Amino acid sequence: MGSQLNTGVPLPPARSSTAEKLLVAASELMIERSSIEVSLSDIAQKSGVNAALVKYHFGNKDGLLLGLLARDAATEIAQLEYLLAQPIRPTAKLKLHIAGIIRAYHQFPYMNRLIHYLLHESSAEAADEVSKFFVAPLLDFHRRLLKEGTECGEFRKIDPVLFYTSLIGACDHLFFARHAMSRATGVGPVTEEVCRQYIRHMEALICGGMLTTNGERALAPSG
Amino acid sequence: MGSQLNTGVPLPPARSSTAEKLLVAASELMIERSSIEVSLSDIAQKSGVNAALVKYHFGNKDGLLLGLLARDAATEIAQLEYLLAQPIRPTAKLKLHIAGIIRAYHQFPYMNRLIHYLLHESSAEAADEVSKFFVAPLLDFHRRLLKEGTECGEFRKIDPVLFYTSLIGACDHLFFARHAMSRATGVGPVTEEVCRQYIRHMEALICGGMLTTNGERALAPSG
Repeated sequence: MGSQLNTGVPLPPARSSTAEKLLVAASELMIERSSIEVSLSDIAQKSGVNAALVKYHFGNKDGLLLGLLARDAATEIAQLEYLLAQPIRPTAKLKLHIAGIIRAYHQFPYMNRLIHYLLHESSAEAADEVSKFFVAPLLDFHRRLLKEGTECGEFRKIDPVLFYTSLIGACDHLFFARHAMSRATGVGPVTEEVCRQYIRHMEALICGGMLTTNGERALAPSG
Repeated sequence: MGSQLNTGVPLPPARSSTAEKLLVAASELMIERSSIEVSLSDIAQKSGVNAALVKYHFGNKDGLLLGLLARDAATEIAQLEYLLAQPIRPTAKLKLHIAGIIRAYHQFPYMNRLIHYLLHESSAEAADEVSKFFVAPLLDFHRRLLKEGTECGEFRKIDPVLFYTSLIGACDHLFFARHAMSRATGVGPVTEEVCRQYIRHMEALICGGMLTTNGERALAPSG
């Protein structure tokens, strides 16, 4: 199953400096505006590149968005391989991975929106690309980490697809849901401190759950 | 803090049978097409109601979508109150709640898409409404359940906002991410059996985490 994925990170092809400039400008605009709604003419203006060259390098705006996500994802995916190769316990790798995902979403605040947009509102081709360079390598990493942890007796047996769904969903939701929560309940934005709190929360939840010893007794049939 | 929320479920105002017919038709079309992309004229045709009456009852299409979500959410939110009042342990309530959320998303397969659409792509007014009738009561339920569980010593102390984010994010992601995963990895659709598996997975993860006793020793500083 995993053999098609273990050839390493599918890095995007080497890009001209013009293409790089366009990506840097798009990224900066998205961070400035807290939105992925940036026009090609804004990107061209900020980068000092002629708007016609976007078409030449990326085909269209969705192509540019895909290029930006590929650029940021490649860094993250490469770090997964590095993490897996470290001479530390699977439990320590798991904790570093949880912190890494949350920090990546925080560092690239538009990444989460880009993924949702490209998977669900763009073309089938764009969704296929995102699946290939982001979803598949991340799922493969989870398969290998869970296998390592189960084999050395640190993790109980867990289905990798269900694990992927729950971990990525929980991390993603911090960034996706926060402004909805703030409307209703006065919850603030995702600051550096909120990130640190959520990393601690997720590490504790994924590793040990939320029950005390009393709670675990309550789970038993006789409870 | 909670006093503004503890007045019970904000049920939508009683509706005429015409409005009900429009909601039923919209709901059936979304299930048939596995999409929330349904036109007003399709809804009118299926319901046998004149398209002009949509405007009368709901203002516009987003108003109708909001009405549909409010109808389905009201049922779910009412069940939270019922669950909290049961004479069972907090741990048992937690497990029933996890299963309830996953089953609700499965029963109303368009609910998840509607929530995302109304929170992020519709108007600020629609997002405010969703926050009020869905996010706020659910978060308030979590606050009260966690308080009950902590006070009787079954749960360790957990921040309700972080808990909400991780639980709802993980449940939501099963339905949101599944087709992206299927593109990359041959993961199938969310069947009744997948729901059952995910309920078991989430119950085990949220209650007890994924570490074995060996794994917990690996967490200790000396490990």
